[in-house]
Amino acid sequence: VLDDCYSDGRYENGTIKPDFEKFPRGFKHVSSRIHNLGLKYGMYSSAGYYTCGRYTASLGKEKIDAQTFADWGVDYLKYDNCYNGGQEGTPDLSYRRYDAMSRALNATGRPILYGMCNWGSDQPWAWAQTMANSWRMSGDVTDNFSRPDSRCPCTGDEPGNVCQLQGFHCSILNIMNKQARISSKTQSGAQNDMDMLEVGNGGMTDDEYLTQFSIWAMAASPLLMGHDVTRMSPQTLSILSNPAVIAIDQDPQVQSAARIWRYFVADKDEYGQGEISMWARVMNNSDVAVALVNGGNKTREMNATLADIWLDAGGSTAKQARMGYDVYDLWGHRMDNATASAVLKGGAPIGTNSTMRYNATAMSYAEGLRTNHTALFGTRIGSVDPLGTVRARVPRHGTRLLRLRANGAMLDGAKDEL
Amino acid sequence: VLDDCYSDGRYENGTIKPDFEKFPRGFKHVSSRIHNLGLKYGMYSSAGYYTCGRYTASLGKEKIDAQTFADWGVDYLKYDNCYNGGQEGTPDLSYRRYDAMSRALNATGRPILYGMCNWGSDQPWAWAQTMANSWRMSGDVTDNFSRPDSRCPCTGDEPGNVCQLQGFHCSILNIMNKQARISSKTQSGAQNDMDMLEVGNGGMTDDEYLTQFSIWAMAASPLLMGHDVTRMSPQTLSILSNPAVIAIDQDPQVQSAARIWRYFVADKDEYGQGEISMWARVMNNSDVAVALVNGGNKTREMNATLADIWLDAGGSTAKQARMGYDVYDLWGHRMDNATASAVLKGGAPIGTNSTMRYNATAMSYAEGLRTNHTALFGTRIGSVDPLGTVRARVPRHGTRLLRLRANGAMLDGAKDEL
Amino acid sequence: VLDDCYSDGRYENGTIKPDFEKFPRGFKHVSSRIHNLGLKYGMYSSAGYYTCGRYTASLGKEKIDAQTFADWGVDYLKYDNCYNGGQEGTPDLSYRRYDAMSRALNATGRPILYGMCNWGSDQPWAWAQTMANSWRMSGDVTDNFSRPDSRCPCTGDEPGNVCQLQGFHCSILNIMNKQARISSKTQSGAQNDMDMLEVGNGGMTDDEYLTQFSIWAMAASPLLMGHDVTRMSPQTLSILSNPAVIAIDQDPQVQSAARIWRYFVADKDEYGQGEISMWARVMNNSDVAVALVNGGNKTREMNATLADIWLDAGGSTAKQARMGYDVYDLWGHRMDNATASAVLKGGAPIGTNSTMRYNATAMSYAEGLRTNHTALFGTRIGSVDPLGTVRARVPRHGTRLLRLRANGAMLDGAKDEL
Amino acid sequence: VLDDCYSDGRYENGTIKPDFEKFPRGFKHVSSRIHNLGLKYGMYSSAGYYTCGRYTASLGKEKIDAQTFADWGVDYLKYDNCYNGGQEGTPDLSYRRYDAMSRALNATGRPILYGMCNWGSDQPWAWAQTMANSWRMSGDVTDNFSRPDSRCPCTGDEPGNVCQLQGFHCSILNIMNKQARISSKTQSGAQNDMDMLEVGNGGMTDDEYLTQFSIWAMAASPLLMGHDVTRMSPQTLSILSNPAVIAIDQDPQVQSAARIWRYFVADKDEYGQGEISMWARVMNNSDVAVALVNGGNKTREMNATLADIWLDAGGSTAKQARMGYDVYDLWGHRMDNATASAVLKGGAPIGTNSTMRYNATAMSYAEGLRTNHTALFGTRIGSVDPLGTVRARVPRHGTRLLRLRANGAMLDGAKDEL
Repeated sequence: VLDDCYSDGRYENGTIKPDFEKFPRGFKHVSSRIHNLGLKYGMYSSAGYYTCGRYTASLGKEKIDAQTFADWGVDYLKYDNCYNGGQEGTPDLSYRRYDAMSRALNATGRPILYGMCNWGSDQPWAWAQTMANSWRMSGDVTDNFSRPDSRCPCTGDEPGNVCQLQGFHCSILNIMNKQARISSKTQSGAQNDMDMLEVGNGGMTDDEYLTQFSIWAMAASPLLMGHDVTRMSPQTLSILSNPAVIAIDQDPQVQSAARIWRYFVADKDEYGQGEISMWARVMNNSDVAVALVNGGNKTREMNATLADIWLDAGGSTAKQARMGYDVYDLWGHRMDNATASAVLKGGAPIGTNSTMRYNATAMSYAEGLRTNHTALFGTRIGSVDPLGTVRARVPRHGTRLLRLRANGAMLDGAKDEL
Repeated sequence: VLDDCYSDGRYENGTIKPDFEKFPRGFKHVSSRIHNLGLKYGMYSSAGYYTCGRYTASLGKEKIDAQTFADWGVDYLKYDNCYNGGQEGTPDLSYRRYDAMSRALNATGRPILYGMCNWGSDQPWAWAQTMANSWRMSGDVTDNFSRPDSRCPCTGDEPGNVCQLQGFHCSILNIMNKQARISSKTQSGAQNDMDMLEVGNGGMTDDEYLTQFSIWAMAASPLLMGHDVTRMSPQTLSILSNPAVIAIDQDPQVQSAARIWRYFVADKDEYGQGEISMWARVMNNSDVAVALVNGGNKTREMNATLADIWLDAGGSTAKQARMGYDVYDLWGHRMDNATASAVLKGGAPIGTNSTMRYNATAMSYAEGLRTNHTALFGTRIGSVDPLGTVRARVPRHGTRLLRLRANGAMLDGAKDEL
Repeated sequence: VLDDCYSDGRYENGTIKPDFEKFPRGFKHVSSRIHNLGLKYGMYSSAGYYTCGRYTASLGKEKIDAQTFADWGVDYLKYDNCYNGGQEGTPDLSYRRYDAMSRALNATGRPILYGMCNWGSDQPWAWAQTMANSWRMSGDVTDNFSRPDSRCPCTGDEPGNVCQLQGFHCSILNIMNKQARISSKTQSGAQNDMDMLEVGNGGMTDDEYLTQFSIWAMAASPLLMGHDVTRMSPQTLSILSNPAVIAIDQDPQVQSAARIWRYFVADKDEYGQGEISMWARVMNNSDVAVALVNGGNKTREMNATLADIWLDAGGSTAKQARMGYDVYDLWGHRMDNATASAVLKGGAPIGTNSTMRYNATAMSYAEGLRTNHTALFGTRIGSVDPLGTVRARVPRHGTRLLRLRANGAMLDGAKDEL
Repeated sequence: VLDDCYSDGRYENGTIKPDFEKFPRGFKHVSSRIHNLGLKYGMYSSAGYYTCGRYTASLGKEKIDAQTFADWGVDYLKYDNCYNGGQEGTPDLSYRRYDAMSRALNATGRPILYGMCNWGSDQPWAWAQTMANSWRMSGDVTDNFSRPDSRCPCTGDEPGNVCQLQGFHCSILNIMNKQARISSKTQSGAQNDMDMLEVGNGGMTDDEYLTQFSIWAMAASPLLMGHDVTRMSPQTLSILSNPAVIAIDQDPQVQSAARIWRYFVADKDEYGQGEISMWARVMNNSDVAVALVNGGNKTREMNATLADIWLDAGGSTAKQARMGYDVYDLWGHRMDNATASAVLKGGAPIGTNSTMRYNATAMSYAEGLRTNHTALFGTRIGSVDPLGTVRARVPRHGTRLLRLRANGAMLDGAKDEL
């Protein structure tokens, strides 16, 4: 049994307690300070005998721990899957284990966002919607775009979608390929969690980080910063703060983009990976967002037909495909490094009246989108005719993220149907 | 938890109620009007906390809901699988959940056709026969013949036949390939449901729709119209009303055709798919129906030997293979567009005495088949000698559906055995 | 629910009864007549609500049915898996269902051989040894050597050995490939059942039938005749009655041959299959039996080294590989057609003193083997030197079945170790 | 049912007893003698009705058997998985069965190392840490480096990591490939058990045995001698007693090396296998151990970059990759055959003051490592610059096992970060 856990291999009976060395005034005090900054307070435990770090966890003690969290003013619970005593292997077994905490949290009366972290075991996307706000759907992300790793053995291309070892060291591309199959499972208040953002950790190129942020937003995944924010670079800030991309993530029509197509290409990267894909998502205001992802090893011209973009509406026969659109590049107004440096140095407070900044506390994304706030729509870069094709030059391991807005042009057929 | 469902993630305790905005006089009234039209009344719920549309569903309330349905005069229940609380993962778990409604329906005393809609999860074809009248055996069908879609990740070719994500956007070809493995599971009163007909929805060619209708009939699948019947085109009517094909579906010997062979071909379509297949089914009157399906990208000559058609009877050594047959094209008397247009305009009532129309209310298919009603046998297009080969020209993504009737010719060997 | 079963989808409560139309004097009478012929009496039921033929079966009624069978004098129970109410999906669920009948049979006090027929579902080879005498380990066999069939979707080469649809129409080659993985699971009194012999049914060549009989014997599988014995041909008799091959099956050292190697070859047959393999089994008297199987499309020279034959003993370092052997062809004394015809016509009673006949009632195989009865060892066709290679010409879809007996030659190394 | 087990297929009720023929003075006596030799006493049973050898086992009798073992002075229990009554198929079922013995052992008060031997069924690496000290993670090892065998059907490359038949006759390479996926699961006191060492059994070359020992040590696997120690050869002794390699296995920082990369190569061996790999493990003293494994058929030059070796720390951006290292060959001081022969003949007692011998009873590995005992660090063979590449010539089926120790060189970047 684990050397640094309790002698009989079972966990202690006591309740969760602060480490008073690290938190001498306890968690209620920490909570108040966090709340006073206008932030929310996130807590962590596991549906097992220990947390992954081998501290006492909550399996079998859900009620008392949930009440403790509520008493401390917790707003978000990440609930992990380590040391679960083998209580898994069918959706039923996992459901019951995670549902116990769901009911316990609800019973406290305090609204606590419940983030299941069971790594996609037992297909949570099939059953967690009635119990949790989000659920991890893969093994842990790593700071690499495409590298396969033995320790993340599932690829998202398994026949039958079966995976019995979620693992870790999963690349951005790996998690995207898993999301492609289950994109429809994300709904408002119940979302696939693609794991934290690696943006800012240094292992990927700017294009690769931009791809993660773009696709995570397209998927309406939680956007959790995973780097040391006290050492944020201008480049990192300019990715994480882009309001036009965050507005995709936060669109009132909560759903994930679908991967409409994917092709394997010949210019493979150093890890033998080479694939391109197109993702589309209809937004609440009837715009459509399109991501062209180049997983090849060289910059390439990519394109997407309106028939494909509107595939789910009927393809070339859909009235939406028979209309014309203005095309906006959602990274068009990305903050430049000079500005970002100034912000990070405190010399340039983030305002709300520019194209590169948006104060979501002052105005919700829903409201900003409804009122067509310029910061939320990037740069207009052209238009596309009815049944036409959107074209873009996409760098290696990069993404072009576009938003298409109907401009009134339409084929007779489209007009007739409207 | 789902934003538009109840706050605690669990469903309300009350019974199912009509939406009196939409149905001011309630469902019993709706039921009477449907029955007065000579039609049957279908209802929908889910073996979960909510329906897929997130209305209250029946898990845990089977008895009261079944009685409500019976009181309303329901004749058919489609029972879905959404939000099932993780009560799946082994046949045992799914069986118990669906069996609860089966028993509840039986307890009402009203005959209600019970259509399980669990998408093939946990292999219903292995266990649903003792409880349900039909069961969906795949993810949701889409209006496309062959396009693979990330969201329908199982293909029917999984090693071990394992599928843990049924999905949706499944093509006609995808569902055919899944049916090929489990065709034997369909029996009288207990049938694989290949999902609704896409005929009339506009995304496929006439040949593709004809293929869906032909193979669904060969499989004895429920034939559920899935288009807007108030906008039915002549072309659609001429497919859906073809009595010679419906007679295959409704044959008193209820069983599915088997896919006898399948080959991959070089002329792949735009989605990279290219395969051809031959399906055969012995009918109640000892005829044999044969479908030649061309999933290639060009019209091609296809053929089927009698030895293959009678494979299950013993192939070339079977006495049936050693007999001669007249060959009927079951699409031979397809209604022409002018006639179909007239019917749709109300100018040409559907009679019973033609080759293209059949009134199954006036005469059951069993009786029509027994009496060799001309509308049920298509057009004779030739014959095939004992141990001979049937040949047909089959268009891209199309099907030739033939019915072979013994014409008395036989090899000595066949004669001896008879 | 099944049209021809009981109205509520559940089975009747009554006990199993004879059909007095077919068996006017009941089964006890039938049993006596069978026993009077010196034969054993086999019975059939299912661990489900109905048998596969939809008669009442024994799930939940194990005790009363077992006692009925014992009262009738049953000696063998084939216990099928149809309509099992979804009580499967883990070994645990299947075990409990089949164990109920095992305990019930034991409780009667009558020795009844218990043959589980659950088709390999839930891996019976992992758990049935403590409860049953044999268990089917694949879907139903068909009368074809190598044809893949959609309805037998598992091949025995599934990654992870997973199979969730056992199916039927499984070829000889298919079942051999499944046996190759689990050969070690067969033990005395607890054996993999590869399904009935197709020998005599007419769909295969003589070489193919000889292969089935040879490999089934090598695997110590039950040898159940599956053809119409009232129409047995001389050819069929000469296969089924070969004592030298049956002696392999019935060897006192009950274990299955292992498939030592398998190669794919270029000369594929009409079904696209082409593979060759070598199987070896150490016999109770220290002989070793070797089967060379040619699944290619043409006669070919094959060979097996002693190092491979004795792989499990250590290969080229094994003392057994360093000895010399006389080689016997176990089909060498196959009965000729004239003799077989005479036997079938009753003109030539089967005696015990020839090389082609053996009376196992008069002398057990164990005794015959112990005393080196000539009928049990085929024809000596040569010898092989220590560390040498056995060579044989093997026809398309055929098998050479050899028995090697140490002849005293040995390398110094072997001698030293002995 | 098994012929040589009890008649009703269930195991006897009595407690485990010695075979007084073999052990006339019982096991307590045996235990004392073992302990008097300064050795620990290992015992064996199964979480089933019988042991694999078909003796009575402990399922359902855990408490009484655990107490018996404690009374006998047992220090280690290997607990097998045979004849488990189908109580498996989900982690839950296996957990409960093995946890029963875990609790029973703990209840005795005697420290007994608990080695689960369930062959990797139901993914013990996901749940056994809270209950057992080690768990087998594959089917049984065989004395062959790379030969695939039908009876060990899982390869470690299964899509989804699914394996439903663990089997036996698994090669060294096979088990390495399985370990590569789950290496992170090994922790202090809770370790993947890769099965016994085949070193000394004669079926492999010296390079192959050296590879097994090296990788087992890198994986912190139990090192269990599997040969007849009374016939140990000098070559075998010189492998099994190498202190520098054992020190890797016994490092206080208990974790498994990760397989950082693996490539398939063209020079395949006689079994069609050909792959090379690099494994790395950070040691407790901040050294890093590196294994270069050549599974190809010819000696080859191999190399590993520091960026790859330190992949998990961040690759080329990691400060550790930007430092220089002295390189030690851990097989550098392998005992020569003359010395080993002398030891085996008793003429040369194993001392503690050489580079090739280490007395772990006199000084723990932790202490030896802390004090840089020369026997634990092999031979210095060179150095590698910051961001440099380690190169080595590796024989067919062989391994170079290196230990890198920082030598103070570092790039400016590394310095800055330190």
